Amino acid sequence: MNVVVSNTIADLRRRVREARQSGASIAVVPTMGALHEGHGRLIERARAECGFVVVTIFVNPTQFNEPADYARYPRTLEADLTFCEARGADVVFAPSLEEMYPREQQAFIETGKVAQFMEGRFRPGHFRGVATVVAKLLNIVGPDKAYFGQKDAQQVAVVRHMVEDLNFPVEIVEVPTVRESDGLALSSRNARLSAEERRVAVALYEALTAGGDLIAGGERRSIEVKRCAAEVFARCPGVRPEYFEVADPVRFTPVERIECPVRILGAIWIGQTRLIDNVLVGTEAQD
Amino acid sequence: MNVVVSNTIADLRRRVREARQSGASIAVVPTMGALHEGHGRLIERARAECGFVVVTIFVNPTQFNEPADYARYPRTLEADLTFCEARGADVVFAPSLEEMYPREQQAFIETGKVAQFMEGRFRPGHFRGVATVVAKLLNIVGPDKAYFGQKDAQQVAVVRHMVEDLNFPVEIVEVPTVRESDGLALSSRNARLSAEERRVAVALYEALTAGGDLIAGGERRSIEVKRCAAEVFARCPGVRPEYFEVADPVRFTPVERIECPVRILGAIWIGQTRLIDNVLVGTEAQD
Repeated sequence: MNVVVSNTIADLRRRVREARQSGASIAVVPTMGALHEGHGRLIERARAECGFVVVTIFVNPTQFNEPADYARYPRTLEADLTFCEARGADVVFAPSLEEMYPREQQAFIETGKVAQFMEGRFRPGHFRGVATVVAKLLNIVGPDKAYFGQKDAQQVAVVRHMVEDLNFPVEIVEVPTVRESDGLALSSRNARLSAEERRVAVALYEALTAGGDLIAGGERRSIEVKRCAAEVFARCPGVRPEYFEVADPVRFTPVERIECPVRILGAIWIGQTRLIDNVLVGTEAQD
Repeated sequence: MNVVVSNTIADLRRRVREARQSGASIAVVPTMGALHEGHGRLIERARAECGFVVVTIFVNPTQFNEPADYARYPRTLEADLTFCEARGADVVFAPSLEEMYPREQQAFIETGKVAQFMEGRFRPGHFRGVATVVAKLLNIVGPDKAYFGQKDAQQVAVVRHMVEDLNFPVEIVEVPTVRESDGLALSSRNARLSAEERRVAVALYEALTAGGDLIAGGERRSIEVKRCAAEVFARCPGVRPEYFEVADPVRFTPVERIECPVRILGAIWIGQTRLIDNVLVGTEAQD
């Protein structure tokens, strides 16, 4: 295999320093592994824009609000390395838990209002853990650009706020969500779905697009968009919606009165699996 | 004047990039201005160790728990620039409030246990503000080394924990406290003392050294060290002690039973002025 696997911070930093000295710009694609085509697009975009591409694979415990979810999270390192090589990554940084958290972590990133609703409300501590590990990875890699998927739109906003407020010298690049042919957003957690669960999982995307269609048709009341989504979910036995919100696309605070653009975001449970998705509504093309 | 004054992040970053491209190592000395010989030693040490020395002057509002203290904090920019030039700084970074905080700050550094006692207890939010502005300055300057004075020993510990836990690629250098001939630690706030206040201000250092002498003589009970300090303060009318603690020198948690090394730390009020100081006791030379 040609892709280099680096397990320590010191080794990774040495490789990045050499690449930078040779004149390459540096990209980082932070992941928790279990890579799919969504990650593939991030790596490809990084490959197209930067001279040296680092993919990080680390299942970060501090962002899991439920230990069982952390334990169940898929770990497929061998396949991930093959995947990274095929997409043209230069280095995979796959540190151990001890390398990333050698002692009890004291310093965390406090994320503020952008992390207050939706994922922030239903996964207490999640974004604190995400922002903290992203800060660590940015400081370890020292990239010019960092790549994130829009499937986790609120996460991108939390990272953006952190980067701007703390002046990290990096550009955040957002890459569109990749979907199955029926619309289901790719997610590492999809692998946990049974065939029957997989069939109804598309309900989330259907609710989001139905909401988007309502708004495109002139609806300006968020409560009507939510009512429409609730009808979609009611037709899908086994789907338990957790939240469904119409939010400001920068501040990620729910809005009652819709003034485009807005982002519609939802989370559902199917059996033991939790899925999230979102769509942006009312950008120029649609308005 | 030869020292360059930079007021914007973009300009400062350009100058640092040029210095780095010419092969220089980068030092940052973060200050709030009102520079005195304590800062002078930081700049001299930086000058001796690095090729390019940035002194930052920014009175950071987010670390003041009392608005009146922020308003009263001495601002002496012209004298500070002359001082920096005389000590050999290459650039003084003196940004505006708007340059550092262009909008409501959302992301802060959460500092953890090391910030819990002493200054952390009596100045709520202080270390959160310190750690946040230091994180910003580290990201703006991108230094190899950052210089801090031991007069603010707990602050150095908070910064160290942040740097280690968030993997900032910088070495923290601690520089010994500079004192007046009677022992008073140099501080920008000393300028606020009246002649009579200045005379009794040395009580803090006297209490610290009396405590250190007790420990050197075999005392192992913190309560006896505090009792000794209280006697010193009782002899000094106008001095109001705020805290006086014997603490673990790494974790900055108070200890009851003394096992050297320890750090003794105190804060006193004299009139409207608050002063802090500390001494390390029981390092090899003394044990």
